[in-house]
Amino acid sequence: MAYELYYWDGLQGRGEFVRLALEEARAPYVEVARGRPEDGLGEGAMLALMDSKDEPHPPFAPPFLRDGDLIIPQSANILFYLGEKLGLAPRDDLRYVVHGLQLTIADVVTEVHDTHHPIGSGLYYEDQKEAAKARATDFIDHRMPKFMGYFERVLKQNPKGDAHLVGDSLTYADLSMFQLIEGLHYAFPRATKRFRQRYRRLAALRDAVAARPNIAAYLASERRIPLNETGIFRHYPELDRSPGSD
Amino acid sequence: MAYELYYWDGLQGRGEFVRLALEEARAPYVEVARGRPEDGLGEGAMLALMDSKDEPHPPFAPPFLRDGDLIIPQSANILFYLGEKLGLAPRDDLRYVVHGLQLTIADVVTEVHDTHHPIGSGLYYEDQKEAAKARATDFIDHRMPKFMGYFERVLKQNPKGDAHLVGDSLTYADLSMFQLIEGLHYAFPRATKRFRQRYRRLAALRDAVAARPNIAAYLASERRIPLNETGIFRHYPELDRSPGSD
Repeated sequence: MAYELYYWDGLQGRGEFVRLALEEARAPYVEVARGRPEDGLGEGAMLALMDSKDEPHPPFAPPFLRDGDLIIPQSANILFYLGEKLGLAPRDDLRYVVHGLQLTIADVVTEVHDTHHPIGSGLYYEDQKEAAKARATDFIDHRMPKFMGYFERVLKQNPKGDAHLVGDSLTYADLSMFQLIEGLHYAFPRATKRFRQRYRRLAALRDAVAARPNIAAYLASERRIPLNETGIFRHYPELDRSPGSD
Repeated sequence: MAYELYYWDGLQGRGEFVRLALEEARAPYVEVARGRPEDGLGEGAMLALMDSKDEPHPPFAPPFLRDGDLIIPQSANILFYLGEKLGLAPRDDLRYVVHGLQLTIADVVTEVHDTHHPIGSGLYYEDQKEAAKARATDFIDHRMPKFMGYFERVLKQNPKGDAHLVGDSLTYADLSMFQLIEGLHYAFPRATKRFRQRYRRLAALRDAVAARPNIAAYLASERRIPLNETGIFRHYPELDRSPGSD
């Protein structure tokens, strides 16, 4: 039976990390919120499930995955669940290392979100622009280099070589790292201008993931929603800048 | 062999969620950063491991757990790992439901942190007080009710009864919910004044966890560091207020 992925239509957002794993594995899945109401799908169906008063384990927010009766919320949790089933995670205790990296990627994603919404996720960007500028500056000057320097070091210190974050084969964390790098380049073209020189292993990993046949086919398909200003990674030129260290 | 928990000395922070699970299970553990340098412990030992150039899987930040050769970072990930070993998680697929809740609790914790550090975690609170006031207001008026209302609903809809978040026995998510509620009351006494009336199931869960013999013994011990203004939950009176809906 196909997996049911529940995530907002029209944006990559946190759902994209799950989509990449499903696409790489060519796993059958239905995008519930992107379907038609006449088929019992659409965002209404997603919201109904979230608001259900008799669902035994209601999710807080998208993305969540339904596999039979089981509803799994939180992108990193979904990937932990799918990783084993789709062959995108180690079967031994290194799966906790992969998951730890995924959660650190998720932390970066939250910080990127907060560069444009530092005061309140329910408020307009226009009403928190000053704070956004300050937070984006701190992210570009301090947080992004700290995180990306760390991930580069993870590749460097991987005893199985620097082609993957963990072990010697692809995991969902590698796919998510591709997505994070893509998103950072979209949101912050000036801040990432020297990314390739600074983080050559991460750049090579990004290229290797993009060249995988199933990923390349997905990226060229209509299923891949373009990055835009409704998602996590938003290109607001006024928030982008060359890092203070450039 | 005892688990080695690595977390900053002097604050509860994200390490406390792990401590509660270890204490409930009476699992032997060493607090590395709280030990003495002459024993090879202390924060220096923790930082050395984080900065190690030959550690195969270096962690980004505390807390992390060492179990033999394995280093597991991220509090929710540590709890996933320990949950099975310590009998604090379901053995079936419901473990992903527990983990999803833990990750949502972790999201609240991050948002609480950002009420006092909305612009930059490396900047002084004093330099982001205005933004902190705005973010705390949004948290108290919108985010806290949304999250806590959700968790109350999780208890209510649990088919096994409202004594636990998942199933009919204690999980690490219940322990973490206790900690979250404690922290919110410490940081925001005015905002949480009506907590018991609004969220009676959560309040009952908090009380039940506090009354568990191993938890009660831990809370009364010197191992429990008091909440203070170096941790996640900080009582800055200027950030606390009655919710707009009161």
